[in-house]
Amino acid sequence: MNFSTIRRENNKVIILAQTRLPSEEKYLELDDYRDVIEAIKCLDVRGAPAIGIAAAYGMALAVEQTGRTEAEFINEVANCFKDSRPTAVNLFRAVDRMLSRFRQLPNNDEPAVLEALWSEAEAIHEEDRRMCRQIGIHGAELINDGDTILTHCNAGALATGGTGTALGVIYTAVEQGKRVRVYADETRPLLQGARLTVWELMRAGIEVTLICDNTAGMLMKEGGIDHVIVGADRIARNGDFANKIGTYSIAVLAGYHKVPFYVAAPASTFDDQTDSGEQIVIEERSAEEVVEGFGDRTAPAETKVYSPAFDVTPFELVNCFITDKGIKPGGRKD
Amino acid sequence: MNFSTIRRENNKVIILAQTRLPSEEKYLELDDYRDVIEAIKCLDVRGAPAIGIAAAYGMALAVEQTGRTEAEFINEVANCFKDSRPTAVNLFRAVDRMLSRFRQLPNNDEPAVLEALWSEAEAIHEEDRRMCRQIGIHGAELINDGDTILTHCNAGALATGGTGTALGVIYTAVEQGKRVRVYADETRPLLQGARLTVWELMRAGIEVTLICDNTAGMLMKEGGIDHVIVGADRIARNGDFANKIGTYSIAVLAGYHKVPFYVAAPASTFDDQTDSGEQIVIEERSAEEVVEGFGDRTAPAETKVYSPAFDVTPFELVNCFITDKGIKPGGRKD
Repeated sequence: MNFSTIRRENNKVIILAQTRLPSEEKYLELDDYRDVIEAIKCLDVRGAPAIGIAAAYGMALAVEQTGRTEAEFINEVANCFKDSRPTAVNLFRAVDRMLSRFRQLPNNDEPAVLEALWSEAEAIHEEDRRMCRQIGIHGAELINDGDTILTHCNAGALATGGTGTALGVIYTAVEQGKRVRVYADETRPLLQGARLTVWELMRAGIEVTLICDNTAGMLMKEGGIDHVIVGADRIARNGDFANKIGTYSIAVLAGYHKVPFYVAAPASTFDDQTDSGEQIVIEERSAEEVVEGFGDRTAPAETKVYSPAFDVTPFELVNCFITDKGIKPGGRKD
Repeated sequence: MNFSTIRRENNKVIILAQTRLPSEEKYLELDDYRDVIEAIKCLDVRGAPAIGIAAAYGMALAVEQTGRTEAEFINEVANCFKDSRPTAVNLFRAVDRMLSRFRQLPNNDEPAVLEALWSEAEAIHEEDRRMCRQIGIHGAELINDGDTILTHCNAGALATGGTGTALGVIYTAVEQGKRVRVYADETRPLLQGARLTVWELMRAGIEVTLICDNTAGMLMKEGGIDHVIVGADRIARNGDFANKIGTYSIAVLAGYHKVPFYVAAPASTFDDQTDSGEQIVIEERSAEEVVEGFGDRTAPAETKVYSPAFDVTPFELVNCFITDKGIKPGGRKD
């Protein structure tokens, strides 16, 4: 990729400010872990895997910045990161892994703690890169030359430490010489499809057409879509999964039109602690994002808004899960 | 209604500039019929019935303004109005009715032509008001006290000469003392739901919650919707109908969730000249409306966009049509 979503540089955390895309490619150079938390909360870094990586780097940064290595502080920082967003399981997993690395240390010497935390964060990042590659390789087997793929939100290089999950499949298929066209749902309210997916696919020279979310059904009816591929923020033990609001509607539409529906996600997105989709906490976002997110106010003052950030799609609507460990069958049988 | 969508006043055509809503309630006072055409094209007046009324008034205005009454001119004006938007059948019907009134006149005396055209336009407007009332009365029978209704786009007082079609049903139910809650799809790209439906329902004191279009499926899954009611721009002989893009997706979702799906439209929306939905011409709108409609640009430069203004929903997904002549059964059997 010819951009960097997140990285460590000179013991700072460098984050591409995704809220400024596509108009500006600005990198935040963060030397305060609280700014990393803020970047997660305001969605400058987003996407389940990327949030996990940001939190891991952020925990190392907290020690770098403060010199504090006592367990109480580390736990407190960990909790702040866990509180930053509620839905993606990768965040909790990454933070717990950092905590576990910390607890394995024989003592709290600052250089040793620092070295352990930075290297653990980089390991998480590197594993994510590898995970994207593996997802790409497995998923590309499902894609044929000439296929048209619909995706929702952004499950690309901007959402991960590597080439992405859903988009990782597309990048790999294109690398293999397959011609692929993509339709990107704009993904209201925050338009991650328009702002991010279109941006990174155009950068990679892949043909992409933007549609409003409400146009996907018509496209499927007209036979314009061969596959749907989306990411996931959390996959419950029964195979239900949470992803960006609108994913569920697309899954129902894909089922109705017999368009294969794939979920591309690393094994770390599968959450054994969650039995079913009903247990997944769904974050609600502010009304302002819907009614004045991009300039003009577009609804009357005091408009009541319901804006869940995610929805839950049942296992039965998924043809298969494309993971770094291979393809796992879903519950849709057609 | 405590606002006026369109009216004749001092032989001008007064149009509420809907593109300025909700931030400003501005009335255009038009004394040039070409400005009426422009108001239709730019969507200052929109909604199938309202477009028909605007075109009818506009044809009278053309004679008022120019003093010209020869058939050649009247036909030319008629064609300009017919070319203003392609999908709604009401437009063609209203223009043809004005032409037919004109052709019945014994001669082309200006006062007689003027009087005939203005009064025919007012008759079309008055019939539309009555039609809305009748749709409201028939449709309200389907609504129970305490129901929650989802609607898409704006099929209200702002879209008609009266209280609306889909919203006419809601207004009537509320008048009858039923408590009704409404969810309004924001309706991308032009946000007629957020800007117009929310505006007019709030003005009428009806409880309304705005959602992004992609949230409707989740709401239905959670059992939050008792009925879907939408309008229609054209209904083919086989019962397929065109309406705002996104209607088809909602119809599929409603079918999947067993939520009754109603189409509220005047008998004039049924087009005997169109055999099925496949024959309905679907207007494509500009990319700009999607990527920079409301302030900031939200996709990279040169983004390819597919933005149909309407989609076609098959008869099989409609439980019933609520018309001014009564309820007509649709093709959905549940």
